[in-house]
Amino acid sequence: MNATPQPLTLHEDRLFPSDPTQREIARRLYAQVAHLPIVSPHGHTDPAWFAGNAAFANATELLLVPDHYVFRMLHSQGIALDALGITRRDGSRANVDPRAAWRLFAENFHLFRGTPSSMWLNHVFHDVFGLRTKLDAGTADDYYDRITAALQTPQFLPRALFERFNIEVIATTESPLDPLEHHATIRDSGWNGRVITAYRPDPVVDPEHEEFAASLERFGEITGEDVHSWDGYLRAHRQRRAFFASMGATSTDHGHPTAATANLSTDESRRLFDKVVRGAASATEAELFRAQILTEMAAMSLDDGLVLQIHPGCFRNHNAGLFERHGRDKGADIPLRTEYVHALKPMLDRFGNDPRLTVILFTLDESTYSRELGPLAGHYPSLFLGPAWWFHDAPEGMWRFREQTLSTAGFYNTIGFNDDTRAFLSIPARHDVARRIDCAFLAKLVAEHRMDEDEAMEVATDLAYRLPKQAYRL
Amino acid sequence: MNATPQPLTLHEDRLFPSDPTQREIARRLYAQVAHLPIVSPHGHTDPAWFAGNAAFANATELLLVPDHYVFRMLHSQGIALDALGITRRDGSRANVDPRAAWRLFAENFHLFRGTPSSMWLNHVFHDVFGLRTKLDAGTADDYYDRITAALQTPQFLPRALFERFNIEVIATTESPLDPLEHHATIRDSGWNGRVITAYRPDPVVDPEHEEFAASLERFGEITGEDVHSWDGYLRAHRQRRAFFASMGATSTDHGHPTAATANLSTDESRRLFDKVVRGAASATEAELFRAQILTEMAAMSLDDGLVLQIHPGCFRNHNAGLFERHGRDKGADIPLRTEYVHALKPMLDRFGNDPRLTVILFTLDESTYSRELGPLAGHYPSLFLGPAWWFHDAPEGMWRFREQTLSTAGFYNTIGFNDDTRAFLSIPARHDVARRIDCAFLAKLVAEHRMDEDEAMEVATDLAYRLPKQAYRL
Amino acid sequence: MNATPQPLTLHEDRLFPSDPTQREIARRLYAQVAHLPIVSPHGHTDPAWFAGNAAFANATELLLVPDHYVFRMLHSQGIALDALGITRRDGSRANVDPRAAWRLFAENFHLFRGTPSSMWLNHVFHDVFGLRTKLDAGTADDYYDRITAALQTPQFLPRALFERFNIEVIATTESPLDPLEHHATIRDSGWNGRVITAYRPDPVVDPEHEEFAASLERFGEITGEDVHSWDGYLRAHRQRRAFFASMGATSTDHGHPTAATANLSTDESRRLFDKVVRGAASATEAELFRAQILTEMAAMSLDDGLVLQIHPGCFRNHNAGLFERHGRDKGADIPLRTEYVHALKPMLDRFGNDPRLTVILFTLDESTYSRELGPLAGHYPSLFLGPAWWFHDAPEGMWRFREQTLSTAGFYNTIGFNDDTRAFLSIPARHDVARRIDCAFLAKLVAEHRMDEDEAMEVATDLAYRLPKQAYRL
Repeated sequence: MNATPQPLTLHEDRLFPSDPTQREIARRLYAQVAHLPIVSPHGHTDPAWFAGNAAFANATELLLVPDHYVFRMLHSQGIALDALGITRRDGSRANVDPRAAWRLFAENFHLFRGTPSSMWLNHVFHDVFGLRTKLDAGTADDYYDRITAALQTPQFLPRALFERFNIEVIATTESPLDPLEHHATIRDSGWNGRVITAYRPDPVVDPEHEEFAASLERFGEITGEDVHSWDGYLRAHRQRRAFFASMGATSTDHGHPTAATANLSTDESRRLFDKVVRGAASATEAELFRAQILTEMAAMSLDDGLVLQIHPGCFRNHNAGLFERHGRDKGADIPLRTEYVHALKPMLDRFGNDPRLTVILFTLDESTYSRELGPLAGHYPSLFLGPAWWFHDAPEGMWRFREQTLSTAGFYNTIGFNDDTRAFLSIPARHDVARRIDCAFLAKLVAEHRMDEDEAMEVATDLAYRLPKQAYRL
Repeated sequence: MNATPQPLTLHEDRLFPSDPTQREIARRLYAQVAHLPIVSPHGHTDPAWFAGNAAFANATELLLVPDHYVFRMLHSQGIALDALGITRRDGSRANVDPRAAWRLFAENFHLFRGTPSSMWLNHVFHDVFGLRTKLDAGTADDYYDRITAALQTPQFLPRALFERFNIEVIATTESPLDPLEHHATIRDSGWNGRVITAYRPDPVVDPEHEEFAASLERFGEITGEDVHSWDGYLRAHRQRRAFFASMGATSTDHGHPTAATANLSTDESRRLFDKVVRGAASATEAELFRAQILTEMAAMSLDDGLVLQIHPGCFRNHNAGLFERHGRDKGADIPLRTEYVHALKPMLDRFGNDPRLTVILFTLDESTYSRELGPLAGHYPSLFLGPAWWFHDAPEGMWRFREQTLSTAGFYNTIGFNDDTRAFLSIPARHDVARRIDCAFLAKLVAEHRMDEDEAMEVATDLAYRLPKQAYRL
Repeated sequence: MNATPQPLTLHEDRLFPSDPTQREIARRLYAQVAHLPIVSPHGHTDPAWFAGNAAFANATELLLVPDHYVFRMLHSQGIALDALGITRRDGSRANVDPRAAWRLFAENFHLFRGTPSSMWLNHVFHDVFGLRTKLDAGTADDYYDRITAALQTPQFLPRALFERFNIEVIATTESPLDPLEHHATIRDSGWNGRVITAYRPDPVVDPEHEEFAASLERFGEITGEDVHSWDGYLRAHRQRRAFFASMGATSTDHGHPTAATANLSTDESRRLFDKVVRGAASATEAELFRAQILTEMAAMSLDDGLVLQIHPGCFRNHNAGLFERHGRDKGADIPLRTEYVHALKPMLDRFGNDPRLTVILFTLDESTYSRELGPLAGHYPSLFLGPAWWFHDAPEGMWRFREQTLSTAGFYNTIGFNDDTRAFLSIPARHDVARRIDCAFLAKLVAEHRMDEDEAMEVATDLAYRLPKQAYRL
């Protein structure tokens, strides 16, 4: 804690190499992409914000409570989630003054030094709220007051921010059980913002999901299909996918524990599904079922054109005590070693050579970049690599992604950036970081005479804007 | 596609750091090694080229059709191999005009931006063919014509290029069933070029090879040994190794799925071999057999002095449909996670401490560099590390290899560069990249005061020339 | 070998980036931490040195014979350990003139180019012994004579060096069977040097240790507990831990083959322990026993406040022949792939959220930094990351540690540096390397405008001094 407030600046050359040759090139490349519209094809913002366009409550509710990057770091240093007012599993919350929670965050802001959260947050503080002193114990109250006050003004309503952020299109993520009423509201509102959905069927696809049986029941009600038979279950998916596509979806998304795919016969699938429906599937059979579903989804994608995203390899809710108390998505997910070469083969044997199919692969296991993912994407027409994801969505992680996939996948089997966030205000910051790192990476190639600057300029624009639109068919 | 042709240059400082201090040092180091003769102890050029010394047909046949780095990238973006005239499994080829295939390649040359292929190809275009505009759709025909015309001139015959490239020695790779007639022709021709063979026994060593039984039969015919008995089989290997050595071979090479070695008793080996010969070996037994063969090969190496190369960890022919249509070696091989610590122990327990044995290890799994390979090579007298291989034979991959093995293996448990290529014209480009990266890496050490420049100069020369000769006993 | 001796210098900017912007910042950061006292909370120096304060014998005995980093590299190039006079398994040694061994080392000193050993040794030569020519064949005798002579002077006695090195506290590592007599001698001597112990119970914890049965027997004698019953065995640990704590210990240390932990019921533990005691435990049960012990140790740590260190993932004594001849700890340990996410869960489920517990994790498998260790430490209050360890304790390894853990664990879930060495004279060199690399790493963040220099200054001090004291409760 400093006695006098320290100035907060956002240097125009941040994230660029300090070597003057590279910095000059990076600046020129960045100048061409800095102001391109934001294409956000994968994320977790709440469509209710844009449907209702209500003001965000206060600094804590907006910036602290929903951001598991932030509260997991505070938790790691012994701060209880209840002290921050983080939601409990039963939906209740500790009776915490949001200002007190904010102060606790501010006092510990040094923990984030060097992390992407500190970059994103400082960008938000500086550019979105116009703050010019650093957040610390001494400035906590001023921050809280100024942010909370700003949020009550028209310029800080969700739609106004959406426009100010120059978002061309943003995708949210919904379950097949979601009626997409907020998307309908947005569509019918006359507002021009393009907020689309994405089809994320995990609750009706994962037999080990705690709400699988209830979700399946509801899936049948919504679709009118006999979802307890394999054929009806597949028809129900096709129906909901069509509905999602009608609400703008161009992709599906699958968050499985592994990247396993399968290629069962129809009879085998039916038998397996019967066990799944009866709740009689073993862990191995549950895994096989999820694996088969990925292949079925690929088959449907060939028909309806939805892009297939695979986000595997996370141990969800690793912290048993915290899960008991606070439930899912509380910063207790831990990456796992992940295998792709054998895992994807069944699906690839069926559809891998079909250039009409787009499968976008993500990983939390960076050891697979150069060994598995680059070589796979550098061979199969249907495969593309999603950007550095989640724990790796940081300058170093983005750099490693490029550095380890370039020689085998090139730039053109990758698909630009995903912000993947529910932290709406950080979206410009996140895209800015990605653009800066790509420009810095390209600047090194140019400075080392591996690429001419005009080519790098084209690649920079492709990565920032053209490739995500193309890959996601936007 | 640019309206006007863009200039093609080959910057004299390419691949050197842009930091002036490091660049100056790199330049000085490189100046000492740039023109050293090429020692190419491991590769896949066709000895028939040097035996027959016939002209290469045209640009497409020379530069596109044989280069799986190139056509796998084109395939990854949906271009059918048939459209490029790539050979099918039955040896036939689609009826494609080679000029049309070349145009397709040229139109998509931007896909290679940043990849080693673009560097190698531009080096060939610029230095071998004297081209001074970039390859793109607009220059495709001019490229095709000029390259094809040049190939018909005496200066572009294989032996002339060999001499122009300053190749001191090059190794090809042959099966034990190969009569080595081209090597004999070269030897008897009076030409001074040193083209040697290497003993690659995979077809008679891998029970899962589709031609194993037939190959074994032929192995017996050639050697006159009873190769269906373990003892005769080993004698046949010894005989062929001796023949290969008489044709210049100084090494054997083994491309197994894993790095497994075994140390069976003679009785166990005989029993296992009986099952293998009867086609009754399970997958596990086939793996054990390959494992035992590595140890047997090490034993033979102690007698005949051949260096033992192990190239493990690739899933061959991953793409079932493409294999069906186009067969092996069509850019569909994918690296696998590979384990060395347990795998090599049986062989190392027998021979690992014998400094008369040289085993050269390669990997496609970079996570093993710092964890397994560096520590193993930095301990066992018989073990040395081959360079960054195949998917990792790129500036970034070479850098990671050095950066992750230096502290444990140093420079002197590594063996300099292998080009490992069948793309003959790219050999100077590949060695040049390796020399530049090693000089850049050393320049960083010098600039950061970890090594004096005179020491770095010695290391640079060792890596470029002395160590490969020494390791391969050339 | 050079005809004339080459000058040996220790550049003041060594290990700093050559980019002028970064170098300037690194210099300023380093100036603040260069002379901070050394906190060495984990290492393997011999307490007898400080108890007896006798002179070291000669250059070879001090610098070559105990340093497995050094002799493993010499061995890797075919130099027999006997030629260096390395101890054999039976305690005997080849009859080697120490001067002859030193010459052999000197002639091969080029093997260490670029390795941390060369940096550490040159630092010792230059700063501790005042040598100003490089070690090579030509200077070997001069080195040997000057070092050996210096060692006989009062300034080179262990306690004098301890003070000259500005060591604030150093921890050694002892078995529970150790009477800690040297620590008692030091404590009672009136000397002010703080030499503490650490509790390393591997011999009484690992059923596969060759001396387990005998050690357990002795454990009972020393403690007076019935260590053949589970309850008595646990009491014995508590008793010895208390004794170690009374001799200054603030930590325990556990060198298991894996990171496995378990959470058995008391009944299950008793049954398992019975099998272990009877020598009837299978390999799986031995592993389970070690796993349970880690959780028991965590439970005891909550009571007595000792910090729990886990050093997993090494294949000990990989070289069978060398182990047969020379025994343990002869540079033949090889890292293994290591898993943490499942392995630590049982212990974390019990104690992971308790901020009173400090568990410090180390790894030899760098692929776990970004995938497992960073995310775990960035979530659990009890978990902290130890520094780059053993094979990775080099500039590149330290850099990768920071670069791959920063975004998820930040700086404040790491604990500064451990030298982990038995090479006493190299301790200042090792801490200096760590401080320089941390400053260089921070300088890059500052130069790329990700952190202000005053913040980096604070972090640099924290990493060099404050965090190790805090983490180890010193």
